[in-house]
Amino acid sequence: MEHMMQRAVCLLSGGLDSCVAAYKAKEKQYEIYPLTFQYGQRHAKEINAARTIASTLTPQKHVILELNLKQLGGSALFDDVSSLPHHDLQDIGQEIPSTYVPGRNTIFLSVALAYAETLDAAAVYIGATATDYSGYPDCRPEYFKAFQRLADLATKQGIQGKPITIYTPLLHLTKGEIIQQGLRLQAPLHQTWSCYSGEEKACGTCDACLLRLKGFTEAGVPDPIAYETFPKWYKY
Amino acid sequence: MEHMMQRAVCLLSGGLDSCVAAYKAKEKQYEIYPLTFQYGQRHAKEINAARTIASTLTPQKHVILELNLKQLGGSALFDDVSSLPHHDLQDIGQEIPSTYVPGRNTIFLSVALAYAETLDAAAVYIGATATDYSGYPDCRPEYFKAFQRLADLATKQGIQGKPITIYTPLLHLTKGEIIQQGLRLQAPLHQTWSCYSGEEKACGTCDACLLRLKGFTEAGVPDPIAYETFPKWYKY
Repeated sequence: MEHMMQRAVCLLSGGLDSCVAAYKAKEKQYEIYPLTFQYGQRHAKEINAARTIASTLTPQKHVILELNLKQLGGSALFDDVSSLPHHDLQDIGQEIPSTYVPGRNTIFLSVALAYAETLDAAAVYIGATATDYSGYPDCRPEYFKAFQRLADLATKQGIQGKPITIYTPLLHLTKGEIIQQGLRLQAPLHQTWSCYSGEEKACGTCDACLLRLKGFTEAGVPDPIAYETFPKWYKY
Repeated sequence: MEHMMQRAVCLLSGGLDSCVAAYKAKEKQYEIYPLTFQYGQRHAKEINAARTIASTLTPQKHVILELNLKQLGGSALFDDVSSLPHHDLQDIGQEIPSTYVPGRNTIFLSVALAYAETLDAAAVYIGATATDYSGYPDCRPEYFKAFQRLADLATKQGIQGKPITIYTPLLHLTKGEIIQQGLRLQAPLHQTWSCYSGEEKACGTCDACLLRLKGFTEAGVPDPIAYETFPKWYKY
């Protein structure tokens, strides 16, 4: 099967990183097929952000797959908000955080790979970064190398010599660099959502908000979304 | 975390192979954690079979995870019964069949691995066979080797030097040998379901029924489940 444009399945969480990763795929002229998981997150705000971002990327269907990972237990991301991590900025990323969902990237990539195989797509894009979260086993470069090897063996395309490529365009970028890339690509950063809570405004105190605000500080631009409060070091 | 018994996550489909694979894990003295997917199969008969088999294996919770793979398109297993493959026995396995669900084993293994990581389990068991379905890319020995490599890198246990082992105890067995193993282990083969249709009796004509009946013929014993009809070569 040959397509006019090559296809790429883009994992979209609704957060900043996956949005920029998908815009990287768009820059490479891929036809984008967005894929989002509803996996038992505490709130729908991220999914709605993913919907909005998807609509800016492509006229293709946005697949939102329900997968209740809560049934497997194991992460603070499924508990109520009170148990969510609030660290000082310098302590984030020093150990495997309680929000770590075991196997999340492996599950997401597996489904993305299956979808890519069905679509006869050439690529899968994931916005993983090895920089801010060195504590996640499944964000390391050697992990993605092993997944690529698996993809080459697991798919019809792979055994026919046209493997599906797993792209991790943000892997070695800092949050500040990701934001700069997003600005350059005119990605809708104002539509992304990172905060662990699902209130109208981002809390400005959870680990996800702190990393995001640090990134905007590094990038030298204000974060376009609204916050309940800001850390003292945030200058805008 | 140390447990009295080592734990194994066992992928259970409700079919014959995964039942025997799980009984292999039980033979090795693992505490069994059964995991089944409701992925858009045409009927609930297989899931109910999995439930019954799980209850014979372990008092632990049987996780049945919904995952609507239909949303990704791509397999005759999601279409209605009329489109299901009916081949002559000698033609089965000659090419990638229309019931091939892209990425199914990769997705199932990924979720099983995540569950094993959460449980601090030592093993994952899958009843894949390379013998009858050489046309499936994700049933080949080199595929499972690549998945093991991924598992070693993807999990906390793996990076701490206590990797989760992926067991494929049936990989090189014929259906006849699998049935003989099942009989030896007193696995409840009469509770397993293989037929593509979900009627009261197995159809006896679909590819899955033919392979199963051929297996019982090779094993030299009658299949304990009820059939609508039998192929001419079936002797019991």
